[in-house]
Amino acid sequence: MRHILVIGIGAGDPEHLTLQAVKAIGRTDVFLVLGKPEERQDLIRLRRRMLDEHARPGHRLVEVPDAERDRGAPGYADAVEDWRRRRADLVAGLLDAHLGPGETGAFLVWGDPSLYDSVIAVVEEVLARRPGSFTHEVVPGISSVAALAARHRLTLTRVGRPLQITTGRRLAEGFPEDADDVVVMLDGRAAFAGIDPEGLDIHYGAYLGTEDEILVSGPLAETSERILRARTEARERKGWIMDTYLLRRRTDEPG
Amino acid sequence: MRHILVIGIGAGDPEHLTLQAVKAIGRTDVFLVLGKPEERQDLIRLRRRMLDEHARPGHRLVEVPDAERDRGAPGYADAVEDWRRRRADLVAGLLDAHLGPGETGAFLVWGDPSLYDSVIAVVEEVLARRPGSFTHEVVPGISSVAALAARHRLTLTRVGRPLQITTGRRLAEGFPEDADDVVVMLDGRAAFAGIDPEGLDIHYGAYLGTEDEILVSGPLAETSERILRARTEARERKGWIMDTYLLRRRTDEPG
Ligand SMILES: C[S@@+](CC[C@H](N)C(=O)[O-])C[C@H]1O[C@@H](n2cnc3c(N)ncnc32)[C@H](O)[C@@H]1O
Ligand SMILES: C[S@@+](CC[C@H](N)C(=O)[O-])C[C@H]1O[C@@H](n2cnc3c(N)ncnc32)[C@H](O)[C@@H]1O
Repeated sequence: MRHILVIGIGAGDPEHLTLQAVKAIGRTDVFLVLGKPEERQDLIRLRRRMLDEHARPGHRLVEVPDAERDRGAPGYADAVEDWRRRRADLVAGLLDAHLGPGETGAFLVWGDPSLYDSVIAVVEEVLARRPGSFTHEVVPGISSVAALAARHRLTLTRVGRPLQITTGRRLAEGFPEDADDVVVMLDGRAAFAGIDPEGLDIHYGAYLGTEDEILVSGPLAETSERILRARTEARERKGWIMDTYLLRRRTDEPG
Repeated sequence: MRHILVIGIGAGDPEHLTLQAVKAIGRTDVFLVLGKPEERQDLIRLRRRMLDEHARPGHRLVEVPDAERDRGAPGYADAVEDWRRRRADLVAGLLDAHLGPGETGAFLVWGDPSLYDSVIAVVEEVLARRPGSFTHEVVPGISSVAALAARHRLTLTRVGRPLQITTGRRLAEGFPEDADDVVVMLDGRAAFAGIDPEGLDIHYGAYLGTEDEILVSGPLAETSERILRARTEARERKGWIMDTYLLRRRTDEPG
């Protein structure tokens, strides 16, 4: 039986790898990479470094260009669904061509595979097309959310209160109704700068876990500009940015 | 300068430890434990096992009985605040008595220290009383949320949609308004069995990462009873339970 591992490799620090992930990498025959044309050289190097350190001698690495998302498609969800289908075709092809009987293949996922990542869904779609053609397993990882909290030495959840994890796109539509603690990911547009800052603190992190890490905290009203500048400057210097932040409504209740 | 580490040690599987946590454990002089009278022998053994494997020879372990929370106090938040103050007294005392100049002390936290855990807040309260008396650092860990998702091979976030993390107490007051994916923790009362199950799936996990792990998935309406039985049976057999679950509203949109 062929086996597929989906391995969370942490948010950018090679020491985020868990002992379980190290073992999983060590027992992998073929690493399967869906390459993005714009993928950051830094991240490719980082992944390479993890494999050099933990993969077994003789492992293979197969990279195919990822399917591109159709940015012109009518609905966001439809476009994503279509993209996922084409990715499933790709992955099915990858497995046929490169994963022999009894072999183990692995996808390495930045952060934790359970947050805003589609690899698990793609693997399950391939499996649904050909039930029983492989077994699969997920290895959890340190998400950028956990990394953000640790670097700011924050507890994300206040006593007995909810935490919401959402996207920049959603935040732009309004601050969530029923949570005072909101972590925002996938924010290409700096949505934090477009909302009413009254009563909110921000704890911002970019390139978490890496040498380029940027951390900024403060009342949103006073900090927003500073983050926008740091963000623009970093994006120009590096050509890309990866950032996430906690928005926290100040209350009188204890943390 | 004295140094305090708050180290996330994962949700129950010793292999959830990250390389960073292993190193942090290895450079700790004194492990500080706030013992709970009812603490589970299994968890104490598990922690002991991690120290045996990763702590440096000659490390010390100091355990003091944790401050107890006043269950009869008027407000939940007040009681927690008072409890936190008494814990800060305890921790300040612990540091005075056991952490020498230049030494490193560590608190080990189950899961990730950023989720429903008070150690970071207590450490910061001690530091606020005596600014500059130590430095501190947080090491992220695999939370029970990440473990739940991995064991069920779930993506917690659907495309572009929010995820809410909340408590059993909150869920009992009603399903959150603005999220269709809700992870529930700290649910002593099986709140999932008291809400309208229509249109909801549940992905349930108890004792995640351990030999006693229980996983159940299905439509809430059909699965609730089975989980209640498994839960009662397990709690009777082991004397305690630790469980968490995802509630997911079925929609036509792609996952
Ligand atoms: C496609 S999602 C993947 C999230 C990933 N699975 C995780 O667990 O962190 C990408 C988003 O994660 C966040 N992110 C990932 N790595 C990050 C890092 N090192 N620093 C800051 N944010 C990061 C950013 O919000 C980014 O837009
Ligand atoms: C005080 S909170 C601490 C959470 C922890 N910091 C984390 O990141 O998982 C305790 C709650 O976490 C959840 N939990 C912790 N460990 C668990 C495990 N091994 N299996 C299932 N649930 C767990 C349960 O919901 C429990 O009520």
